[in-house]
Amino acid sequence: MSLVPAVLAGSRLSLSRLLTQIENDTPEGQAALSELFAHTGGAWLVGVTGAPGTGKSSLVNQIAYHYRNPQDGEAKTVGVVAVDPSSPFTGGAVLGDRIRMGALSGDEGVFIRSMASRGSLGGLAKATSGMAQALDAAGFDIILIETVGAGQAEVDIAKLAHTTIVVEAPGLGDDVQAIKAGLLEIADILVVNKADRPGVENTERALKNMLQLAHPVKRVFRHHGQAMTVEAEGEEEALWIPPVLRTVATEGSGVPELLEAIARHRAHIDETGDLERRVRARLESELELRLQDAVMARWRAAVSERDYEKVVEQLLARELSPSQAAARLLNGKSPK
Amino acid sequence: MSLVPAVLAGSRLSLSRLLTQIENDTPEGQAALSELFAHTGGAWLVGVTGAPGTGKSSLVNQIAYHYRNPQDGEAKTVGVVAVDPSSPFTGGAVLGDRIRMGALSGDEGVFIRSMASRGSLGGLAKATSGMAQALDAAGFDIILIETVGAGQAEVDIAKLAHTTIVVEAPGLGDDVQAIKAGLLEIADILVVNKADRPGVENTERALKNMLQLAHPVKRVFRHHGQAMTVEAEGEEEALWIPPVLRTVATEGSGVPELLEAIARHRAHIDETGDLERRVRARLESELELRLQDAVMARWRAAVSERDYEKVVEQLLARELSPSQAAARLLNGKSPK
Repeated sequence: MSLVPAVLAGSRLSLSRLLTQIENDTPEGQAALSELFAHTGGAWLVGVTGAPGTGKSSLVNQIAYHYRNPQDGEAKTVGVVAVDPSSPFTGGAVLGDRIRMGALSGDEGVFIRSMASRGSLGGLAKATSGMAQALDAAGFDIILIETVGAGQAEVDIAKLAHTTIVVEAPGLGDDVQAIKAGLLEIADILVVNKADRPGVENTERALKNMLQLAHPVKRVFRHHGQAMTVEAEGEEEALWIPPVLRTVATEGSGVPELLEAIARHRAHIDETGDLERRVRARLESELELRLQDAVMARWRAAVSERDYEKVVEQLLARELSPSQAAARLLNGKSPK
Repeated sequence: MSLVPAVLAGSRLSLSRLLTQIENDTPEGQAALSELFAHTGGAWLVGVTGAPGTGKSSLVNQIAYHYRNPQDGEAKTVGVVAVDPSSPFTGGAVLGDRIRMGALSGDEGVFIRSMASRGSLGGLAKATSGMAQALDAAGFDIILIETVGAGQAEVDIAKLAHTTIVVEAPGLGDDVQAIKAGLLEIADILVVNKADRPGVENTERALKNMLQLAHPVKRVFRHHGQAMTVEAEGEEEALWIPPVLRTVATEGSGVPELLEAIARHRAHIDETGDLERRVRARLESELELRLQDAVMARWRAAVSERDYEKVVEQLLARELSPSQAAARLLNGKSPK
């Protein structure tokens, strides 16, 4: 039976089951996502990424807590997808998720789901995207997507998020001091967490220096983290320069300011049309993944096990290169 | 003109140019890889992976140095592919690679190449694999592949390597102490680098405990890092239990023992037939990537820009889900 009506009606148990189906990429999960898709588009997706040791899990919990208990304005509901192979809470562990919730536990307006990294290429991005869609359709206002490390997964997830937060911390060792170029590119907001530790000024300065290198503008009329009017090579345009914020997640300090920065970024990309471009790029890449799966499945069905095996043997004997082997298979049996 | 003859004749300049072609995935690079493929299969591929701050770049340099200057036996030639978005030496920076070489500089038997993480899904694994193949064909005995972080990229690269070394270091913060489950799975050898720092016993103990959980055997007849005869669920089989070694890369201590462990692992997977399985799996996944590219390229050529755009509009309006959009495109225009 489809879980969709129950998920739309707000059943947490059904949502939890659906997320498992999505994580395992079952036919039920795929069908449910198609059904739910018309109900998506309401949530704001916030990516939170950073190396191990930056305390980003605590920060994510604090962000969720502050959305639930705002200093002013209305509380927002929050879904969390934690994609973190280094976390002891991954692998879909329900117990782990409960432990992790801490002050959030018992709050029906928060839903946390952890996921271990997927083995197959592209599997991680697909599962994360599907889970975010399910939480979106289930009506959560804010969806926090937590990822670890630097690399492919982060870039893919940044494409998914509307606002991407990159978390650093002081004193994580030499090769962390200079922020990864790839992460800087995807950051909408930079956070120096554990800002009560020594070295916070150095980390902050390093980030600001790298930002200046990345955004070489002639004149800056306002502060970091504001929509800025800048004059770059003679042209005026509205640019978003990522603000650098300090937080101490264990105490929650700096978190209200972080929520304000997220709101400013949201308003900014909404006004400039950047939001529409991001949503479009995200949906196109979703479509791309689905097409890839479907086209490959069709092709596989058209090639016999025996032909495939024969080509693999020639590959092992180094008589054919991988490209030549692919060409042999494709030309022998064109996909129908 | 093809760089292949010059690369096979040992020209470093041609090799360097070829690696750039491969990194940029140019038609010349692809053609050269096909030509070179028959000359591959001679090198031993060693993956070295670990979080930022573990000192793995220094360790990689030390491993290369010890292969070049062995305590006994013949010196081996070494190629290095450093895939590290956090390194200041990435982006194919020739200057960076020169600075990085340190004691290795001027040694014709070493070739180091750095690469920034690639933007596109699967691009990183493909480029790394291609570069390793080029170095293999160029005759390097050992190819070291250095990667950072935890996640998809590491798993993909582990598939590429014959021996995978996972590097940890004491005191990198709470969520590093427990080694990432995904990394433990791919490790053939575990190294606690910076072993002169406080906390080394804790890190070592944590790794050994996790190994015991991962390899629950009834009786263990020999030590870590040896080919072991174990009795697991009544069956006798030869198992490789990853050894846990200590190194101080800045001084080179522990590195000769690490090279011995690599040699033992090599002998072990050769004897057990595991090597053949790994090579086969790797070549099949290469083939898979090439097929995916080729099949998608064919399909794209068969669909008009107008049809594609129309479906994307319906996707943006949330009238079609990504799966439905893919099905619409595939059924409207079947790939030829």
